[in-house]
Amino acid sequence: MIPADIRTPAVMIDVDILDRNIQRMAASMQDRGLGLRPHVKTHKTLEIARRQLAAGAVGITVATIGEAEVFAADGVKDIFIAYPLWVEADHAARLRALTATCRLAVGVDSAEGATAMGRQLGPDAASVEVLIEVDSGHHRSGVLPDETVEVANAAAAAGLGVAGVFTFPGHSYKPGMPTGAAGNENDALGQAAAALVSAGFDVRTISGGSTPTALLGGDTAATELRPGVYVFGDAQQLELERCTWDDVALTVAATVVSRHEARGGNVRRVVVDAGSKILGSDRPDWATGYARLPEYPEARVTALSEHHATVVWPESSELPPLGTRLRVIPNHVCLTMNLVDEVTVVRNGVVVEQWAVAARGRNN
Amino acid sequence: MIPADIRTPAVMIDVDILDRNIQRMAASMQDRGLGLRPHVKTHKTLEIARRQLAAGAVGITVATIGEAEVFAADGVKDIFIAYPLWVEADHAARLRALTATCRLAVGVDSAEGATAMGRQLGPDAASVEVLIEVDSGHHRSGVLPDETVEVANAAAAAGLGVAGVFTFPGHSYKPGMPTGAAGNENDALGQAAAALVSAGFDVRTISGGSTPTALLGGDTAATELRPGVYVFGDAQQLELERCTWDDVALTVAATVVSRHEARGGNVRRVVVDAGSKILGSDRPDWATGYARLPEYPEARVTALSEHHATVVWPESSELPPLGTRLRVIPNHVCLTMNLVDEVTVVRNGVVVEQWAVAARGRNN
Repeated sequence: MIPADIRTPAVMIDVDILDRNIQRMAASMQDRGLGLRPHVKTHKTLEIARRQLAAGAVGITVATIGEAEVFAADGVKDIFIAYPLWVEADHAARLRALTATCRLAVGVDSAEGATAMGRQLGPDAASVEVLIEVDSGHHRSGVLPDETVEVANAAAAAGLGVAGVFTFPGHSYKPGMPTGAAGNENDALGQAAAALVSAGFDVRTISGGSTPTALLGGDTAATELRPGVYVFGDAQQLELERCTWDDVALTVAATVVSRHEARGGNVRRVVVDAGSKILGSDRPDWATGYARLPEYPEARVTALSEHHATVVWPESSELPPLGTRLRVIPNHVCLTMNLVDEVTVVRNGVVVEQWAVAARGRNN
Repeated sequence: MIPADIRTPAVMIDVDILDRNIQRMAASMQDRGLGLRPHVKTHKTLEIARRQLAAGAVGITVATIGEAEVFAADGVKDIFIAYPLWVEADHAARLRALTATCRLAVGVDSAEGATAMGRQLGPDAASVEVLIEVDSGHHRSGVLPDETVEVANAAAAAGLGVAGVFTFPGHSYKPGMPTGAAGNENDALGQAAAALVSAGFDVRTISGGSTPTALLGGDTAATELRPGVYVFGDAQQLELERCTWDDVALTVAATVVSRHEARGGNVRRVVVDAGSKILGSDRPDWATGYARLPEYPEARVTALSEHHATVVWPESSELPPLGTRLRVIPNHVCLTMNLVDEVTVVRNGVVVEQWAVAARGRNN
């Protein structure tokens, strides 16, 4: 399964699975009459954004101005920075430059934030749209639905173009939660949009998010959705039952470097050379471990160091010999892509291309 | 505390604290008659390795061949790859190239691994030293002390130069554990070295590791130690009481982007723009959270997304205004350095230099 010319550890993308995931989400959004604005922080890769746009995405979502710059330079014409930016003079200059080549929307979740953004943008404020961030239950950023009008009024007073509302139902990332979180998302977006309409705003965009809720389908108050992880799948999505093993497009190729039959009270385990510096170390308390192995679904990754993953091996299977190459599915694929400068693209088990992770590390 | 010309989020290094940490560890090792071979995976930065060597380090430790190549190209003459490499033909070619410019030692923890390495290196095997990895209680890689002779015999039969033993007492990373782990480290190294001597090997190197145990001082069977994190300190070391707030040389500059007084059942919190894509997301179960704030020791970082850290604010202190710039200490600084291409060097609150993280991402 791992081409012989790959040196481990390395990120491999099966391009046929990737394309199928892209097409499937695009078709689902089209069927539902929703805009698809994928979050490209997941992949940070120009080749993948181009495929998403070719499949019908209305634009892209990014988390930082730096990410927006990378994709705008590649010709993307419609970008939403889904983040409550605190705008200083240098940010304003960069936002201004972006509006010269694309339609730009930015998140805001406070009157002060809107006022600061408008002040820094000055006469150019009207060229930036804002979406008010609503807290739909994740309790991170965002205001409550009935507070959106206050923020929208401040944004309008600052000269910004108020286009609507957005939320990220991050509390969907827990077993049993996607359905409830999708309901919260729908309620919060509906209430917030209604409040803005009542206050006289023209609400054109109602933007929801998250792969777990987007995959549920069903009715929504949203006009567009911003899933990201769906292009690859990962161990979190597997364990949340939001994707199957066959949907996972990204794996990390690894080699068994240390091997231990049970002895001296220790468990039967191997160590592979993919650690937290390539997998990332997100590990929610409900996860079975730090990663999964597609060929050995009963194996458990019980510990992760920078260059070691400790894999407790199932009793039902022979401990693999040293030097065996194994594929590993990271828990959270967005972190994995941000750890490598390039990825190896595979089709039918053969390396066909290398893609640069063009926006890697663009944290601001 | 954060120079005005820094755009957040950004990694800042206080070079005076860095230099003090480097000098203090070097002096301690010299007093104890031990070689200091710092693990440079922590910083991956040429300027810092040069400072460590100038302060008396006997060489450096790395985790991968790629890291070794970066530092060897900068003139480092003595490198230990503290990892049980599984050597294929391309690895052998790279190891050979390294031996042309520096003294090279490599870890091994199996007879099969030693045999494979010797086979791939062929007549050049004698130019690579090996240290047998011993498991001193971390239960990751490494053999039990009484198994070292079998591995050493295989290495010698493969033509490799057996130089001694090494261990990493990673179980020191838990409150109350450093003293016990240092005892385990000492016992395991002593037993393993004695077994090799009894079998007729000339044991020149007995190598221990870990900042928590190295900082304890005291007697040891080791001839050299390989701490890494001591140069910067981090929130794990703080919470393990292995460094003080004043010893922390690396912080991440962040900005308050979202602010929430208690309301609707939610806790009083701010969100800052340093998330897991700059802090890293290591979070041992004993840690108080995902990071610490040096100016607000009672604040708790309770959640971390890719670009958001949620900080539950102490009742004793005013919630800071939006736009406030705060410093954040990551839990595990080795991950932070691997997430950025460059760091901002500060002296007395003024930016004095930018350093490239030259070995960032060199996972193989």
